[in-house]
Amino acid sequence: MLHFQRVPILFFLFVVVCLLFPIQPASAQNQDSLIIRKIYSEALSNPVAYKNLEYLCTKIGGRICGSPQAEKAVFWVKGVLDKMGLDTVFLQEMKVVHWVRGKQETAYSVSKKTGKHPFHVCALGGSIGTGEKGVIAAIVEVSDYEELARIGKEKITGKIVFFNHPADPTFISTFGSYGSSVPYRATGAMQAARYGAVGVVVRSATPVHDENPHTGIMHYSDTVMKIPAIAISTNDADRLSEQMKKDPGLTFFMRTTCKDLPEVKSYNIIGEIRGTEHPGEIIDFGGHLDSWELGEGAHDDGSGVVQTIEVLRLYKTLGIRPKHSIRVIVFMDEEIAQRGAKRYALYVKNELNHEKHLAAIECDRGGDTPQGFSIDATDTQVQKVQGWKKLLLPYGLWSIEKGGSGVDIHDLKTFGIPLIGLVTDSQRYFDYHHSAADKYSTVNPRELQLGAAAVAALVVLIDTYGL
Amino acid sequence: MLHFQRVPILFFLFVVVCLLFPIQPASAQNQDSLIIRKIYSEALSNPVAYKNLEYLCTKIGGRICGSPQAEKAVFWVKGVLDKMGLDTVFLQEMKVVHWVRGKQETAYSVSKKTGKHPFHVCALGGSIGTGEKGVIAAIVEVSDYEELARIGKEKITGKIVFFNHPADPTFISTFGSYGSSVPYRATGAMQAARYGAVGVVVRSATPVHDENPHTGIMHYSDTVMKIPAIAISTNDADRLSEQMKKDPGLTFFMRTTCKDLPEVKSYNIIGEIRGTEHPGEIIDFGGHLDSWELGEGAHDDGSGVVQTIEVLRLYKTLGIRPKHSIRVIVFMDEEIAQRGAKRYALYVKNELNHEKHLAAIECDRGGDTPQGFSIDATDTQVQKVQGWKKLLLPYGLWSIEKGGSGVDIHDLKTFGIPLIGLVTDSQRYFDYHHSAADKYSTVNPRELQLGAAAVAALVVLIDTYGL
Repeated sequence: MLHFQRVPILFFLFVVVCLLFPIQPASAQNQDSLIIRKIYSEALSNPVAYKNLEYLCTKIGGRICGSPQAEKAVFWVKGVLDKMGLDTVFLQEMKVVHWVRGKQETAYSVSKKTGKHPFHVCALGGSIGTGEKGVIAAIVEVSDYEELARIGKEKITGKIVFFNHPADPTFISTFGSYGSSVPYRATGAMQAARYGAVGVVVRSATPVHDENPHTGIMHYSDTVMKIPAIAISTNDADRLSEQMKKDPGLTFFMRTTCKDLPEVKSYNIIGEIRGTEHPGEIIDFGGHLDSWELGEGAHDDGSGVVQTIEVLRLYKTLGIRPKHSIRVIVFMDEEIAQRGAKRYALYVKNELNHEKHLAAIECDRGGDTPQGFSIDATDTQVQKVQGWKKLLLPYGLWSIEKGGSGVDIHDLKTFGIPLIGLVTDSQRYFDYHHSAADKYSTVNPRELQLGAAAVAALVVLIDTYGL
Repeated sequence: MLHFQRVPILFFLFVVVCLLFPIQPASAQNQDSLIIRKIYSEALSNPVAYKNLEYLCTKIGGRICGSPQAEKAVFWVKGVLDKMGLDTVFLQEMKVVHWVRGKQETAYSVSKKTGKHPFHVCALGGSIGTGEKGVIAAIVEVSDYEELARIGKEKITGKIVFFNHPADPTFISTFGSYGSSVPYRATGAMQAARYGAVGVVVRSATPVHDENPHTGIMHYSDTVMKIPAIAISTNDADRLSEQMKKDPGLTFFMRTTCKDLPEVKSYNIIGEIRGTEHPGEIIDFGGHLDSWELGEGAHDDGSGVVQTIEVLRLYKTLGIRPKHSIRVIVFMDEEIAQRGAKRYALYVKNELNHEKHLAAIECDRGGDTPQGFSIDATDTQVQKVQGWKKLLLPYGLWSIEKGGSGVDIHDLKTFGIPLIGLVTDSQRYFDYHHSAADKYSTVNPRELQLGAAAVAALVVLIDTYGL
């Protein structure tokens, strides 16, 4: 569409509108809007975050905490920060759990009527393995915990439970869809074990119809037997359900060799530009470096890592000197036990006599087009950010609302720090989430860079006006 | 991110916020919001537009006007509409130009210093061919028309002109970036011929760095000699420029066999649900069926076609009976000479005694996430649509502004009809635009369906409140 046509006036009108739109704030001769415009121009002209993401995803790859890849990623990030000429770069040591997937997982159904059918499977994060011999048993399909209770212990004992609860596609934000199905991934094994199940198979927690199993953390209870848990792709869940309709006597085989190894050392990585006027007052921002190992951890959360590092680069490249210190925290272990979040919260607590924090910003909703900010703070603070809407709307940042921020900064709320999450377009996020599809090639360079610029713009405004 | 973690309260708060968001309008007990909610739920649960797009793109493929594929697409669309139980389905005949690309295009540079280097090329739409022997000549790089004039006739005569004007990446809307570079595609050949050039090579009009040449219409003047024009990929434009720095005496070879064949018959396709109260008063909406043949015409504009057909399906499936007639127009030939737009405008003119038009809506900015509407109408009409923002914002439709609508409905302005364009996220659009990358696989089903629902919601509001 919109070629340079024989009715050129329409085209020119359109171009004029496009030309006016981005420079609108500049024409207001406002210092803030000029700085924000410079930030966006630099971010879109020099996609350094995108180049960093390429390295992280394609040279290091998936990196669950405790893995050699996670270790490699830590020192790569430190190297990147070291080269940026920051005032401070340091590591924050902690212990992390070291769960390993083991051999390629296997699962199939066996039926006298429909034959043997293999499935696309993966162990859920934190699950015990089945052992080399695997588990073979009759299988019971349930759509939710009510149905599980209705079927009852007698009919479940010794069997595998198949939680087939599709994510509700009608939510406009896919986080709502995810939320409608993720409880079965998180606590399905625990609940099924109470009824005597010997294993669980969970439909992947995504509204997408695909062949990828989507992993993610699951939890056991200390008072209930631990049983192995796997996810199957949503398409496979439909197939298994169909097979069970044809042959309710179907048996199911699953084999996983995942296990916990002893805890290992790991690190958060912190980099900072010291404030010119209030060096002890800090604006925090970050994402998490660990990722599930099935994919490359591109959207979850390589994007958040490279975007928040990019905020510091934009400051350095453009020669912007913040009045307050600005600090990136690259968190370790968001996916399993949030040890990095806890380690940083402890640091903040210990430094409360020396450091004040103006705000903490988290990027952990994927690298797609930014839409605004979700703010976990007082109404007055939310309104203050909403007051900057005129400066942010020309960049598509339309959604500035009270709401959740992010898992890694959540504990900072204890110290009265206003928390902010970067909100991005969620439509594609669960296409990738926790699966082999979470690859660098699915991240768009402009969208990623716009997210970095959005955070940098917000940091500039908080630095100028406080929060 | 956001797994079901050991601090479950944060997770539940997040899910609760997500759950509340989409049902907010419903809780207002407002009839409009209930209907809009139903439209979105149906669109997201049954992606029929997406299935139609799959057929159009993968079974028919690229379809420039006059081609057998365009003919096939016309009768496929008619078949789809015929099966929907509409009140009216008919074809609108016209003649269209029939430009054919001919054999695979070839171009390479030859240098005593750097050797022979082939490029990714395509003829620009409407260009004459070079003939079988091709054109070989010295080449002159210019960044714009000012430089062309500065170099002057003497140094350009007999040579090929290389327009290497990169799209400005700093625009927030990529339509701005496109607009900054497309004039060289559209009129470069005409301008270069005035200085005696024998051919032009144009850097593809896109801010993306890729290997795909992007085609699109170009224009000749009746008073200037017609010379052949090709596009090369943006990466190749950088390479050619580098080679020319190393060897300014480089020669360039290009061969294209494209040509105009005699005009052929083609059609707009129209489908309609008759209004219960005002059947002679019509709300129009549509997209264009023709597409460049390098790709599958998925974003440009298969998306607009299937989305606007989906509006009628949503009405039928949900049993919504419009008071005014609602009409889809599937336009032929947007890309070359807008014959379909002219044909429909003539029809509207001829029927002015019988038909009144409340509004015309065009979808032609790709199948990515919808963001709102751009309205070419009076301030009062723009404000009326903006007054519906509370109903539209829960669906991410945040941008409702005065602006351009679309090429196919533009001529309807003569008759005082308010014009509206669906605005979508533009970040990825010029990754695909007019190139081999414009494929079905790059369209996200949820994003496509959200666009259909957005138009249906707007049609409901116009039907209820007028414009």
